[in-house]
Amino acid sequence: MRVSFDVMKSQIKKVFIKYGMPDEKAEVCARVHTESSNDGIYSHGSNRVARFVDYVKKGWVDINAEPSLEKEFGAVKVFNGNMGPGILNALHATDCGMELAEKYGIGMVGIKNTTHWMRGGSYGLYAAERGYIAISWTNTESCMPPWGGKDCKLGNNPFVMAMPGVDNPIMLDMAMSQYAYGKLQVTRLAGKRLPFPGGFDKNGNITDEPGPIEESMRILPMGYWKGSSFAFMLDVLGAVLSDGIGAADIDTIGKGSCGGASQVFIIIDPKKACAEAELKKTIEKAITHIKGSALSENSMGIIFPGEDYVKARKNHAENGILVDDGIWEEILTL
Amino acid sequence: MRVSFDVMKSQIKKVFIKYGMPDEKAEVCARVHTESSNDGIYSHGSNRVARFVDYVKKGWVDINAEPSLEKEFGAVKVFNGNMGPGILNALHATDCGMELAEKYGIGMVGIKNTTHWMRGGSYGLYAAERGYIAISWTNTESCMPPWGGKDCKLGNNPFVMAMPGVDNPIMLDMAMSQYAYGKLQVTRLAGKRLPFPGGFDKNGNITDEPGPIEESMRILPMGYWKGSSFAFMLDVLGAVLSDGIGAADIDTIGKGSCGGASQVFIIIDPKKACAEAELKKTIEKAITHIKGSALSENSMGIIFPGEDYVKARKNHAENGILVDDGIWEEILTL
Repeated sequence: MRVSFDVMKSQIKKVFIKYGMPDEKAEVCARVHTESSNDGIYSHGSNRVARFVDYVKKGWVDINAEPSLEKEFGAVKVFNGNMGPGILNALHATDCGMELAEKYGIGMVGIKNTTHWMRGGSYGLYAAERGYIAISWTNTESCMPPWGGKDCKLGNNPFVMAMPGVDNPIMLDMAMSQYAYGKLQVTRLAGKRLPFPGGFDKNGNITDEPGPIEESMRILPMGYWKGSSFAFMLDVLGAVLSDGIGAADIDTIGKGSCGGASQVFIIIDPKKACAEAELKKTIEKAITHIKGSALSENSMGIIFPGEDYVKARKNHAENGILVDDGIWEEILTL
Repeated sequence: MRVSFDVMKSQIKKVFIKYGMPDEKAEVCARVHTESSNDGIYSHGSNRVARFVDYVKKGWVDINAEPSLEKEFGAVKVFNGNMGPGILNALHATDCGMELAEKYGIGMVGIKNTTHWMRGGSYGLYAAERGYIAISWTNTESCMPPWGGKDCKLGNNPFVMAMPGVDNPIMLDMAMSQYAYGKLQVTRLAGKRLPFPGGFDKNGNITDEPGPIEESMRILPMGYWKGSSFAFMLDVLGAVLSDGIGAADIDTIGKGSCGGASQVFIIIDPKKACAEAELKKTIEKAITHIKGSALSENSMGIIFPGEDYVKARKNHAENGILVDDGIWEEILTL
C-alpha cells in the first residue's frame, strides 16, 4: 500500500511515544525511519519499527538514555552511547563531528555502547545536506563467515561515504556482504535466483539460490576476500576509535542486532580544500564521465551513488510511500 | 631468482641516482620499492622500477619536484604534488598527517598533481609503524567499466586502512577491481582460470578466463555494483579533498598511470580514543574470533588483513627477496 510521508511519520511517532519516548525525540526517530522508507530503504525504515519496539520491551535499548562524553582531544571526541536509541546517538555524533569540522576542518567522533542506527546513510545524508563530507561506519554482531571459513565471525559492518552534490548529496551506503539477508528472502519468496552467487550452500557449493544460503548462513562477503578483510578492519577500527567493542563481544552481550555496537563518524568540511563551485564541477564531470560509457548487454543503466534514493523520493512524493500491507498493519497495532 | 634486501635496495638506488635523483631521495624511493617486494607486492616493488624510469624520461614525473602547501585550516592541509615522485609526495603527506594527528588527534592531508604512489600500503604501514591509524586512497586513470557499462570510465582507486597491531601493523590495501591486470596476466600465462569470474568477454559473458577479459578490458569491480560505486566515491572525494582532478581529467592529461592523480591521507592517533593495551586486546580478540571459525571446504586458511605481508617478509628474510630474472636483469641495465 501507499502512505503519505506525514501519515507514516506521525503514526511511527505515536508508537515511539507510547513506548516512553519524549515528544521531541519521537519526532526525530519517526522522521528518520520515514525518510529511510521514503528513500526506498524500507528494510531500515518502516520495516524496523516493530523490531525497535521489541528491543525496547526487552530492555536492549534504553529509550531514555543519552550519550555521555568520555574522551576529548582536539578534533576527536569519544562518547558512551549508554545503549540509547541508535538513531539519536548517531545524530548526536554527527552533530558533534560537524562542529569539530567547522572548527578544525575535520573531526572524528567515536561512540561505543550504542544500538542499531537503522540506515547508516541517514547520517551521511544529514551531514552532506549541511555541506559536509561524512565517512562513517558501524560494527555489528557476527553474521558473515570470514573468507576461508564456514562460521559467522564477521559483522556486515555498513560503511558510508557521503558528500554534497549538485542537486542532492552523493552517497554510498554499503554493507560488507554481497547481499543482505532481506534480499535473499525477497528473492526466495519471488521464486527467483540472485543475479550473481550470494553464498555457499551447506556443502560448500557456491550458489545463486537464496534458500540454501539462508539455511547455511554462509553469505558471501562482497568481492570474496576483499569484503572479508574490509569487514575485519571496520570491526576493529570501530572498536578502537570509540574505545568500544567488536563483533566477538557484541555476540556475547546478546542484546540483539548491533546491541552495544561501536561507530565512527569522520566529518570533513570540503570548503577547506575546495571551493563549492569546483566541488560541483568535479561531481558533474565524474557523472558525465561514467554515464558516457556504452551500456553493457544486460544493463539496467549506469547510476552514480545516491541516484537511486532521489528516484525513490520522487516516486514516493507523487504516489505516497510504499509500505508492505502487513508491516503497516503491525505499526498501527503496536 | 633471489636477491638480498640490501642488494636490491642499493641497485635500485643506483638507478634512481643515475636518472637525476639526489642521494637521500633515491635512498628513500629505493627503500620503498624494495620493501614492497619484500612484503610480496612485487608488482609495485621491483617490477615498477623500469616504468618509473620510463615516466621520468618522458617527463611525466618531475624527479626533482617537491610538494608545495596550497591550503591550510586547522587539521587540514592541501598540497600540490607538482608532478614529483609519487612515493616522496605520499610520504610527505603522511608525515604532515601524523603531525596534525599529534596536535589534533586527527588530520587530513590532500595532495593533488601527484604521480603513481606505487604500493598504497607503504604509507599505511609507515603511519601504523609509528603508532597511527591511516585511511587513505588515490584516484587513478580510467581502467574499469562502471557497473552497467562497457567502457573503462572508473579508476581502480586503491583504498588503504592501516593501524598498529600486536606485533606488526594490521593493514588492508585493496583496489576496486576484483583482480588486478597483473593477476589476469599471471593466470593466463600459467594456463589457468581465475578462482572466480573476473570480468566479461567482449560479448558480455561473465568469465573466469583471464585472456578474454584482458582483451575486452571489462574487468569486474569487486562486489559488482558495490565496487563500482565505491570507486566513484573515491575518485570524486579524492579530487575534492585535494582540490585536484578525477579520472576524466587524469585520462585527458595523459601522463601515464596516475599521472596528476589526487590522494587523501586521513591520519588518526588511536591513543586519543583507546589505551594502547586495549587496542592490542581488541585486535587479539578479533583475530581469535575469526580464526575460531571452522574452515570451509576448499579453504586456504583464514587470514587477517596484513598477515600475508608478514609471511612474505619472513620468507624473504630467510631466502632473499624473490625477483623475476628478467626484471632483475632489466634493473641492472637501466
